[in-house]
Amino acid sequence: MIEEVLFDLLHIEMVNVLTGPCETNKTELNVTQLENVGYNTGYRLIKRITRETQRIKEELDVMKFICKDFWGAVFKKQIDNLRTNHQGIYVLVDNKFRFIANISSGKQYMGLMPKYLAFSCGLLRGALSNLGLKAIVTGEVVSPPSCRFQVQVSRS
Amino acid sequence: MIEEVLFDLLHIEMVNVLTGPCETNKTELNVTQLENVGYNTGYRLIKRITRETQRIKEELDVMKFICKDFWGAVFKKQIDNLRTNHQGIYVLVDNKFRFIANISSGKQYMGLMPKYLAFSCGLLRGALSNLGLKAIVTGEVVSPPSCRFQVQVSRS
Repeated sequence: MIEEVLFDLLHIEMVNVLTGPCETNKTELNVTQLENVGYNTGYRLIKRITRETQRIKEELDVMKFICKDFWGAVFKKQIDNLRTNHQGIYVLVDNKFRFIANISSGKQYMGLMPKYLAFSCGLLRGALSNLGLKAIVTGEVVSPPSCRFQVQVSRS
Repeated sequence: MIEEVLFDLLHIEMVNVLTGPCETNKTELNVTQLENVGYNTGYRLIKRITRETQRIKEELDVMKFICKDFWGAVFKKQIDNLRTNHQGIYVLVDNKFRFIANISSGKQYMGLMPKYLAFSCGLLRGALSNLGLKAIVTGEVVSPPSCRFQVQVSRS
């Protein structure tokens, strides 16, 4: 319980310190930095999570593992919905995404949302990378606190 | 277990992103930023930890609570030694401070240590502030991984 609070607080502080009001001229750069922090964290965290599991070979199985075990370890809930076009695009829906669960859903706050997704997009990209999948990950707030992450696996 | 890893990873990333090599000209400023991140985190975290406990009145009892309950919640171990001159100065020793436990103790790394203490100095200062004690907190690596935090309570 306290661990979750600590994680949430650290995340908020990181968003604030990197994209806070005094840095508004650097917002884009700093969202990228947040994404990188997420990438490094995801890359190293999944290493620990999969230390005692067998290598997952199939792309779809990797995605399922990410949705269930990885998301579960980080956010204490699984991804609610996973869809794919079977051509390398996956859509992961979290109906109650923790990092925006406490932000008011008023329209005036919608502009704030992307910076609360950047870390988690990186987290997914880093975890996937460690499991052998190079991907582009983008996030979108559909209707808060519901979020959609799109993963586009590069097969080249 | 995974929560601890996540906390450690986030902390390392935060130190890197704020005081990393590309920002060397801003190290001092950024150590202050790290301390501030710690302050805000500590201030809000202790609020959650003490939500169901009675207000602690005595200064020494506040310090004992910080050493035992607060440090325990964050680092999964208590402060090993608490000393005071009974005039507002407290010395807290953690013989195995987690954030530097994995840094080599070679002399060439000693210069790196302060940035791994800044967040935790802020954490202590924030928690104390929320419990009604205004303090100056400094940290020092004595012999890694042993760390000493000095708390100077302002009684004015």
